[in-house]
Amino acid sequence: MNRLFVRSQLQRFLEEDWGTGDLTTELICLEETAKAVIRAKSGGVLAGLPFLQELFLMLGGVYVKPLKSEGSEFEEGDTIVELDGRADVILSGERLALNLLQSLSGIATRTREFVRALEGTGVRILDTRKTTPGYRFFEKYAVRVGGGHNHRFALYDMVLIKDNHKRVAGGLREAVRRVREKLSPAYKVEVEVENLEELVEALELEVDIVMLDNFSPEEVKEAVKIADGKVEIEVSGGINLENVREYAIEGVSYISSGSIIYGASWCDLSLQVL
Amino acid sequence: MNRLFVRSQLQRFLEEDWGTGDLTTELICLEETAKAVIRAKSGGVLAGLPFLQELFLMLGGVYVKPLKSEGSEFEEGDTIVELDGRADVILSGERLALNLLQSLSGIATRTREFVRALEGTGVRILDTRKTTPGYRFFEKYAVRVGGGHNHRFALYDMVLIKDNHKRVAGGLREAVRRVREKLSPAYKVEVEVENLEELVEALELEVDIVMLDNFSPEEVKEAVKIADGKVEIEVSGGINLENVREYAIEGVSYISSGSIIYGASWCDLSLQVL
Amino acid sequence: MNRLFVRSQLQRFLEEDWGTGDLTTELICLEETAKAVIRAKSGGVLAGLPFLQELFLMLGGVYVKPLKSEGSEFEEGDTIVELDGRADVILSGERLALNLLQSLSGIATRTREFVRALEGTGVRILDTRKTTPGYRFFEKYAVRVGGGHNHRFALYDMVLIKDNHKRVAGGLREAVRRVREKLSPAYKVEVEVENLEELVEALELEVDIVMLDNFSPEEVKEAVKIADGKVEIEVSGGINLENVREYAIEGVSYISSGSIIYGASWCDLSLQVL
Amino acid sequence: MNRLFVRSQLQRFLEEDWGTGDLTTELICLEETAKAVIRAKSGGVLAGLPFLQELFLMLGGVYVKPLKSEGSEFEEGDTIVELDGRADVILSGERLALNLLQSLSGIATRTREFVRALEGTGVRILDTRKTTPGYRFFEKYAVRVGGGHNHRFALYDMVLIKDNHKRVAGGLREAVRRVREKLSPAYKVEVEVENLEELVEALELEVDIVMLDNFSPEEVKEAVKIADGKVEIEVSGGINLENVREYAIEGVSYISSGSIIYGASWCDLSLQVL
Amino acid sequence: MNRLFVRSQLQRFLEEDWGTGDLTTELICLEETAKAVIRAKSGGVLAGLPFLQELFLMLGGVYVKPLKSEGSEFEEGDTIVELDGRADVILSGERLALNLLQSLSGIATRTREFVRALEGTGVRILDTRKTTPGYRFFEKYAVRVGGGHNHRFALYDMVLIKDNHKRVAGGLREAVRRVREKLSPAYKVEVEVENLEELVEALELEVDIVMLDNFSPEEVKEAVKIADGKVEIEVSGGINLENVREYAIEGVSYISSGSIIYGASWCDLSLQVL
Amino acid sequence: MNRLFVRSQLQRFLEEDWGTGDLTTELICLEETAKAVIRAKSGGVLAGLPFLQELFLMLGGVYVKPLKSEGSEFEEGDTIVELDGRADVILSGERLALNLLQSLSGIATRTREFVRALEGTGVRILDTRKTTPGYRFFEKYAVRVGGGHNHRFALYDMVLIKDNHKRVAGGLREAVRRVREKLSPAYKVEVEVENLEELVEALELEVDIVMLDNFSPEEVKEAVKIADGKVEIEVSGGINLENVREYAIEGVSYISSGSIIYGASWCDLSLQVL
Repeated sequence: MNRLFVRSQLQRFLEEDWGTGDLTTELICLEETAKAVIRAKSGGVLAGLPFLQELFLMLGGVYVKPLKSEGSEFEEGDTIVELDGRADVILSGERLALNLLQSLSGIATRTREFVRALEGTGVRILDTRKTTPGYRFFEKYAVRVGGGHNHRFALYDMVLIKDNHKRVAGGLREAVRRVREKLSPAYKVEVEVENLEELVEALELEVDIVMLDNFSPEEVKEAVKIADGKVEIEVSGGINLENVREYAIEGVSYISSGSIIYGASWCDLSLQVL
Repeated sequence: MNRLFVRSQLQRFLEEDWGTGDLTTELICLEETAKAVIRAKSGGVLAGLPFLQELFLMLGGVYVKPLKSEGSEFEEGDTIVELDGRADVILSGERLALNLLQSLSGIATRTREFVRALEGTGVRILDTRKTTPGYRFFEKYAVRVGGGHNHRFALYDMVLIKDNHKRVAGGLREAVRRVREKLSPAYKVEVEVENLEELVEALELEVDIVMLDNFSPEEVKEAVKIADGKVEIEVSGGINLENVREYAIEGVSYISSGSIIYGASWCDLSLQVL
Repeated sequence: MNRLFVRSQLQRFLEEDWGTGDLTTELICLEETAKAVIRAKSGGVLAGLPFLQELFLMLGGVYVKPLKSEGSEFEEGDTIVELDGRADVILSGERLALNLLQSLSGIATRTREFVRALEGTGVRILDTRKTTPGYRFFEKYAVRVGGGHNHRFALYDMVLIKDNHKRVAGGLREAVRRVREKLSPAYKVEVEVENLEELVEALELEVDIVMLDNFSPEEVKEAVKIADGKVEIEVSGGINLENVREYAIEGVSYISSGSIIYGASWCDLSLQVL
Repeated sequence: MNRLFVRSQLQRFLEEDWGTGDLTTELICLEETAKAVIRAKSGGVLAGLPFLQELFLMLGGVYVKPLKSEGSEFEEGDTIVELDGRADVILSGERLALNLLQSLSGIATRTREFVRALEGTGVRILDTRKTTPGYRFFEKYAVRVGGGHNHRFALYDMVLIKDNHKRVAGGLREAVRRVREKLSPAYKVEVEVENLEELVEALELEVDIVMLDNFSPEEVKEAVKIADGKVEIEVSGGINLENVREYAIEGVSYISSGSIIYGASWCDLSLQVL
Repeated sequence: MNRLFVRSQLQRFLEEDWGTGDLTTELICLEETAKAVIRAKSGGVLAGLPFLQELFLMLGGVYVKPLKSEGSEFEEGDTIVELDGRADVILSGERLALNLLQSLSGIATRTREFVRALEGTGVRILDTRKTTPGYRFFEKYAVRVGGGHNHRFALYDMVLIKDNHKRVAGGLREAVRRVREKLSPAYKVEVEVENLEELVEALELEVDIVMLDNFSPEEVKEAVKIADGKVEIEVSGGINLENVREYAIEGVSYISSGSIIYGASWCDLSLQVL
Repeated sequence: MNRLFVRSQLQRFLEEDWGTGDLTTELICLEETAKAVIRAKSGGVLAGLPFLQELFLMLGGVYVKPLKSEGSEFEEGDTIVELDGRADVILSGERLALNLLQSLSGIATRTREFVRALEGTGVRILDTRKTTPGYRFFEKYAVRVGGGHNHRFALYDMVLIKDNHKRVAGGLREAVRRVREKLSPAYKVEVEVENLEELVEALELEVDIVMLDNFSPEEVKEAVKIADGKVEIEVSGGINLENVREYAIEGVSYISSGSIIYGASWCDLSLQVL
């Protein structure tokens, strides 16, 4: 991981919460040291440990000892991390540390549920760009910890031709033509199709992945037959934990769901000074 | 609102998603203009409009016409905003625009539910510092749009003595003493108490607000009697939409719940080029 | 103290003075090491030591040994700090180190004079927001070192309704009403009053502190009687070292004076390589 | 002037004071507009107007009409600037606007006094690098407005060999030798000398300016004779308004005094909404 | 193009050259306006015009009229651009404007030569990551203006397994296995092969592009036969203008050469005030 | 050297290349360590070593052992640096490390050639401001490593009156007058002259250096006679390795050539994991 990038993000988060100073802690904590633990008040999949460690490395004076490993499952009552060192640093860093661990473990936990639901099918669960502004790097990391895979990170690392692009260009064919004329060979081209006719059109064009948008499981089956292995198939739209397995049809490579990130609930963790 | 601050945050969000360029849109959109709408696919309370407007002002070339006002309720099928202008700008800004509107409207919607549940009681619903790292300014704004009130923004604008501070200082009394010795008069002091004994102790000290942490409604009633109007009372811990009204006991000024932010679900909005 | 914040500020200060390089030192200092001292050429109260230490920690290669403690008084001829290490680092950091120590010790020294003048009265001396743009964090820190207290840090951490706000709102009552309708309970509300009538009006409103602006000592006495302990009283305007004690009337909690910062004179310190 | 540089500095200053928002003004000012004036409560030389104008340009919605020109003298009661526009913008920008004008006009005023004292002598008054960390660009600008000249801006734009450099190098001659061996011809070399012997040594070396450090007027006269026009002469150390004219000896080109910046008093200005 | 990104880069470039001010221009240019032209002193392909326009838009007060279009060819003596407006802005921006145009036109010119050499072959010329630190966005843009295509922009947008990766992983097969196990489907995988045996191995693995590193034209022909259209073929290493056409063998999709960027010569342009 | 400045630049370069992560290396390198060497594939003068060392210090986990010293000459096949440590860090940093070393060594190599050509003449070779936007600090450093000298760094550290300034001011005399009226004595004034008449005019004015622009060697000889040691003489325009010695006429102090930077070719270096 690019540690310098992570540090610059953590510094920004600290500025938000700490700014010119922690009024409470700076007055209360003199030279005290403390031991503290982060405990789970409900179960989940742990994500965010490397950021917690980097955070206290940046702040200095606190030794971090994880009792659970990144990606492992924890249960209510489990001690996740032990902290030992300067009391002021532990208290001033507490909220950011927990906000990171709770939100990221929440995403990892939800992702793991989708991964479980797809177990044995070979179909991979993907995230999307529906992420919290400014926090995407961390959210997408948590998806990987949970066992999911990332879709493209941003607008600059893959071509994805969606409905609105097709409308502006005057159709899928013209949109792909414009892209292919100048696109760097470094990038894949994916197109979103709304129905089987469009899929047929897409298959005549130079595309790497086709996203079936809001297809029913039956339509997906039909689409897989038509595609006949010529492109990778991604299914998207209206996927949830209940129906995800129905969509894991042979021939489908990926199922993407923004909700593994934006629909995740925070894990319940707390930090206690002993 | 500090527009320069907002702009610097939006610039950061755009860097995340747009970076060195939008591969798809830059190749597909030539000189086209487009009209587009943002439509609701489910109901909610609208929040984030000023950021959407600022965003397209920064990008340039797109006229934004809101059809709903900030804080108003919308229903499935409603058109929220009309956009008219450069197609490339609309498409490259679409995802960030929606991520802002969807997440913030989600928070405003959830907050409004708490506000409704408390209607007529005079008790105010507050958020906490359990927010997404780097996104707190926006999340707390959405709480206000929803009709809630903000608790402190960060560590630097209020004193809040929590359990861990008391442990480090060796008790509530000593913690308050340390704070009062040097604290600027600009800031309020709030203390978290775990039980009625601690409340009694807090009432002897110079504090502005007492937070009753994880009290049952009965304990809250008892606490209000003991406090007898000498301090403001905030109730916190274990609050949800079902039980919030039970806690709106006369004498309680505030009920705080981190979940109005971290527990909110995104509203379902989409942008369509016409 | 938020060390990461301090570091980012010091880095900015270094960029200002050092930029692309120290032409003189880079050519003159080869591999030499040096011992140096910072000496006082006049007396004062020491402030800024933690920044000096952080500065040389950032630059590396120099051991800093303070001979005086932060907040202590020094006299002409006293050695404040000993430095030992890389000659180039000492010489390139010298000016910033001194600019910090001299300006901040000047503020601490002036503040201490006000504190002395108020000794035994229980009245606290406060600073204001009349500070050097970009340097407020440091200046307000020096006030605390001198024994003073800080007023609010900035526009975002307290409400202070001044004359101009009243004019825009159409009066004090309306101004307070607007504020109270939506204000977070985390923040105090202070109002500035110009005369006793306005004080009476203020006492009917929900305010935490009243600032008596440009009152004579006699008017202050009258005001204290009227207020009768219902709000905290701050006296401001036209305060100087000569008259400050006259204003330290029983019932007054704070006297604020921008001049403890902007009216302070730099202490005279110099750095000498031995 | 590099407007983009100025803007980035002003943005930083605004972040310091305004941060996440102006609690008071955002609640009090609704859609009001206002007229306001900046008035002088004592006399001085005006400096900072271009920054005031740039500031309100950045904030938007306020028309700024200067009634005095930059560098002109004003008297108690004079109206310096009229503002007309959004009330919230005027009130949120007020403090920074005044902090800039008051501090910079103070420097210009003090500088003008030195310039007056030197009138007719042809000797120029210079500032030094004894400036407030992070605010040097503005302080040095105010010196020019006052009629003074700037010494070097920073460590990167001129060579100045001071006492400590000589000690590290083992003498003036060796210090100059090291510098001259590799120095870019773009930069001047100035050396500080402590006595006439050192001046004699300096005259044998390739230097552009010699600074006579802490010389009495008599010693300066002697020095000028010895130098005999071979180098430019700068007098420094212990200069004040009372003695500066004594040092304006024929043959002296510059007198430098850090105190025209750090010793300046703020001008007394206030902003009133009408 | 992401204009906000471009602006932030140009701001950085201006800080480098302009910093605290243009000593010469600020003193010499009073209220003058000027007309100026940018003329070619030798021929080439024009690149950088949009940055020139954005630059003067940021600086303000100068009207830019291009007489040549981006990507067009110019000859010695041609006028490229006319400028009309504030003399100080033209002179302070001159050097950066020319540095951009000269370096980027140089790259476009060199790229065009390779494109010409490959004309009719259908083979595309690609750049590499051998670029000037901090300037890659601009250099890769110039390649596209010249008619070339970009390889991946950076480490984050494509997988490229090179010799050193294979050594660390213990072979190509293991390297590809590790990558494929967790890689997001958004990204292509390219592998560098050193000889025909490795090509055979690569063809058994799941890779999108194979780079033939330092192959002779004969070896390339052999490789194309072996690959038999199963992967895209890129030729790299030791390519120059003289031999590039020899490598444009049927079945080769891309030829990459870092030297179209780092080996380009600046075009000779100058700006003259009329 | 200002290490903090260097670090901030290197961080920026890393963001460009590494951004949110190195897709390839993060998946391929597990816990492996590696030894690697940087080898020369052609000869040159080494420059950039301190940046390479700082880079790996920032990244951590790799020990850097230089086998050649900065400024020394290397030949094809020489090992320049040995690296030992974390394989992932070596591979992710490889490209930036090489881009720095190759470009800077190229400039040092070309500069050394000019220095050689001028050997024994006492004339110094200078660079110009024709540098790659954003990379000037490094390029000018490399010139010094090669044995050349730097001309001014930027617009803020010296006055250079060029042709366009004269046109705006209405002549050389007026341009110098305007500059001298207000210029800080810290800065030198250089003027560019186009012919002998202008040189004569320049000699009557207060200038430190005269740049003879596009003079033939014969004209330079004439100019030197006319100048007669009253100012320093710099020769510029149309200088190359073939004719530079012809211009090294007695009385000329400097010859400047932008091409020692923009005309340099990258050295050919490669990094191999052993």
